Amino acid sequence: MSSSKFESKGQVSSATQSIRKPSILKGFRDYLPEQMILRQEIIGRFRDVFELHGFDPLDTPAIEYLEVLTGKAGENEKLMYAFEDHGGRSVGLRYDLTVPLARVVAMHQSEIVFPFKRYHVAPVWRADRPQRGRFREFWQCDADIAGVASMAADAEIISVLVDALATVGLDHSTVHVSHRRLLERIAVAAGVPEIQAATVYRSVDKLDKIGAEGVKSEMIEGGIDSRSADAILESISIQGDNADILSELSRLLQRDAEAEGALAEMSELFQLLPQIGVPAGKAVLDLTLARGLDYYTGPVFEAKVIEPKVGSVAGGGRYEGLIGTFGSRPVSATGVSLGLERIIEVVRDHGTMPIPTAVAQVFVPVVDRHLEAAADLTRRLRSAGIKTDLSLLEGKSLGEQLKYAGRRGIGLAAILGPNEAERGVVAVKNLSTGEQIEIGQTNTIEHIQQLVELLGHR
Amino acid sequence: MSSSKFESKGQVSSATQSIRKPSILKGFRDYLPEQMILRQEIIGRFRDVFELHGFDPLDTPAIEYLEVLTGKAGENEKLMYAFEDHGGRSVGLRYDLTVPLARVVAMHQSEIVFPFKRYHVAPVWRADRPQRGRFREFWQCDADIAGVASMAADAEIISVLVDALATVGLDHSTVHVSHRRLLERIAVAAGVPEIQAATVYRSVDKLDKIGAEGVKSEMIEGGIDSRSADAILESISIQGDNADILSELSRLLQRDAEAEGALAEMSELFQLLPQIGVPAGKAVLDLTLARGLDYYTGPVFEAKVIEPKVGSVAGGGRYEGLIGTFGSRPVSATGVSLGLERIIEVVRDHGTMPIPTAVAQVFVPVVDRHLEAAADLTRRLRSAGIKTDLSLLEGKSLGEQLKYAGRRGIGLAAILGPNEAERGVVAVKNLSTGEQIEIGQTNTIEHIQQLVELLGHR
Repeated sequence: MSSSKFESKGQVSSATQSIRKPSILKGFRDYLPEQMILRQEIIGRFRDVFELHGFDPLDTPAIEYLEVLTGKAGENEKLMYAFEDHGGRSVGLRYDLTVPLARVVAMHQSEIVFPFKRYHVAPVWRADRPQRGRFREFWQCDADIAGVASMAADAEIISVLVDALATVGLDHSTVHVSHRRLLERIAVAAGVPEIQAATVYRSVDKLDKIGAEGVKSEMIEGGIDSRSADAILESISIQGDNADILSELSRLLQRDAEAEGALAEMSELFQLLPQIGVPAGKAVLDLTLARGLDYYTGPVFEAKVIEPKVGSVAGGGRYEGLIGTFGSRPVSATGVSLGLERIIEVVRDHGTMPIPTAVAQVFVPVVDRHLEAAADLTRRLRSAGIKTDLSLLEGKSLGEQLKYAGRRGIGLAAILGPNEAERGVVAVKNLSTGEQIEIGQTNTIEHIQQLVELLGHR
Repeated sequence: MSSSKFESKGQVSSATQSIRKPSILKGFRDYLPEQMILRQEIIGRFRDVFELHGFDPLDTPAIEYLEVLTGKAGENEKLMYAFEDHGGRSVGLRYDLTVPLARVVAMHQSEIVFPFKRYHVAPVWRADRPQRGRFREFWQCDADIAGVASMAADAEIISVLVDALATVGLDHSTVHVSHRRLLERIAVAAGVPEIQAATVYRSVDKLDKIGAEGVKSEMIEGGIDSRSADAILESISIQGDNADILSELSRLLQRDAEAEGALAEMSELFQLLPQIGVPAGKAVLDLTLARGLDYYTGPVFEAKVIEPKVGSVAGGGRYEGLIGTFGSRPVSATGVSLGLERIIEVVRDHGTMPIPTAVAQVFVPVVDRHLEAAADLTRRLRSAGIKTDLSLLEGKSLGEQLKYAGRRGIGLAAILGPNEAERGVVAVKNLSTGEQIEIGQTNTIEHIQQLVELLGHR
């Protein structure tokens, strides 16, 4: 009995309770409130933009038949979380949001109303090597339009992209637009066989990283002769505004019907963009953009943030073949994927928008165990839509309670202790500056509401 | 060449494109817009209630070490989606949201500010036999408070529960409240050894289903003698208002210090509830409530919806031991889990709130390829925050475009064709009734905004 006096209580209970080590898999993350509040705010803003543009939400299972998932990825199959379920079926975890879209369109053709404008914000899983900024579980944030061949759909997608970035303070961005078939025709005009177009895309895609000389060597290594490589590099480097470049290319590629078609699409697209609200100069023709993915067939685009200078944060394009791989009629689609994880990082690092620190806007302490008054004030604040945290530390001093609220990042405290009650006031304290004012009992809640709005970004 | 004339184009392309059969695993669901819009609306309302009460969001990985997941579930281990990852680690998919909370609290003790009020809305996976209303992937919606022993936390949780149900039109609900330790002391007073308390909980929990006689037989089968069973059934059936029942129990269990403690907690809880805005009569003491889960140690509660008569839709209670199983100091917690999937079903079947049919509030058709005017109107509507779908069917007749919008469930169309432009008006058509009015060019957008609000539930 006396020896137990020397044992720390904590150690005893930890020894008796400890069963499992609390740990988390590499490449996975807990989102504590500090991270989650910002994530949720950004996701909410993107969702609002998608809905403002008339996109409908869609969700699909995390687990699918492996056969369904492995269609597009091909070489990525080894990065898939695959296993056998209890019924011995080969299944896997969702790898992206595009393949599930293709499956949904094929499976629910009679229920879906085309043109189908859907957005999907959800986690995907890849058994990749975890490294800085790359995770095994991360969220994707896609908006696609299926069932429309016209450039109006691509313009809508680009307009969504521009608005989405602006809503999180990334206004200083440019959308670089290119066209897969145009690149292909440039290559063909330079003497490269169509079949080698993919080599051209892959090499050109690296221009930013390895420069023109690097791209040229890559093309030559890929079997393209030196003169063709030079010609391609020259064509994609034509300078000028969008219209100049298009007319120069038109001259260069004349009598090529396919090129004419692609050029007509591009000029239609650039004509549509300002009409639906994408300011001139926001989208620029940039033939050095190729995009890595194989399945694009038409316009491709990428948003680069200029200020802060962080580079590419989103990309997309038109794809014809993918939503046909499930045996349905082929459906032309175009879409964009916002690089959510990267964008969250940029917003946090550069403070491009106000960073919310707490959900609760007001903290109501319980002074001298005067719970009833505090609870009543809380109820009235909540009724007015003010996010209010009622103290659960009623046994602690006011100072300790306010310190707790400060640590949680709550901006204001509304104090109604016996002292305030007697004088018919509520004390309102700014928890970051320590400043405190008293407000009277008429329109108390409206008054606090105004203070919340003054202070708050939520 | 001539033979190809007789082949249907669709068949040809389907034959060449078909690679994979589009199908989905049993027990999993696609949420098409029709379902997803309502799901998202309900989840959003619950999230708003949680935040109004000062709860912070948390998210955790879908995949965890199997060892972490299997602690609580025990007998449920066979229902877990478990597999080996690429590194040969035994991992599993999240089975509930309570075990991850326990792990997070243990792992991030120094970062978390206690009392920790968190909510978590996320999917969980169980390899259960799928049946009507039961799925292998479903969402849970939990709010918990960790680190507070006082009944103020339980009162807050019950108040969240009541507000959450009201926000989706389930106002006619009653929260049944019981207390695990009180039930235990009643059993002890009836002559049942403490060790058999679990048998009592499990039997009593079935009272609704199998009646008093059934419960009695179950207790007897479980080794409890007939007289004790009768005594227990008599005690838990005491009628009266909350205060009456408590004082009668107090008389019955006098000189039992543990019972006194539990009774004091209950009377404190019932005193707190009206103070933080839970109307009297909304929460009732009901000792016939036991709750199935093993880990509860204090007050337990369940919300039953009376009108429409659908029974239990949410439940929770206080648990002491769980957040200590990861070797941290024991942390007392209380929480509620809203039966999200059941609630969505009830809301849809009974129309307890307006069921949103579309995200877009206004559809803007393109008349006679007059795209510029339509696009400009769209841009102005969106700038005012009106969710607007700009037609992508500019080649189709106005009638066909409006039919499309109607099929998508959009309520209003704003039409600005050459005809309207000439006369300086915008035609606004109610797509459900077919009624159409014309509005002038002053305050057009404000006018449409009002029509949207009149019509809409979003």
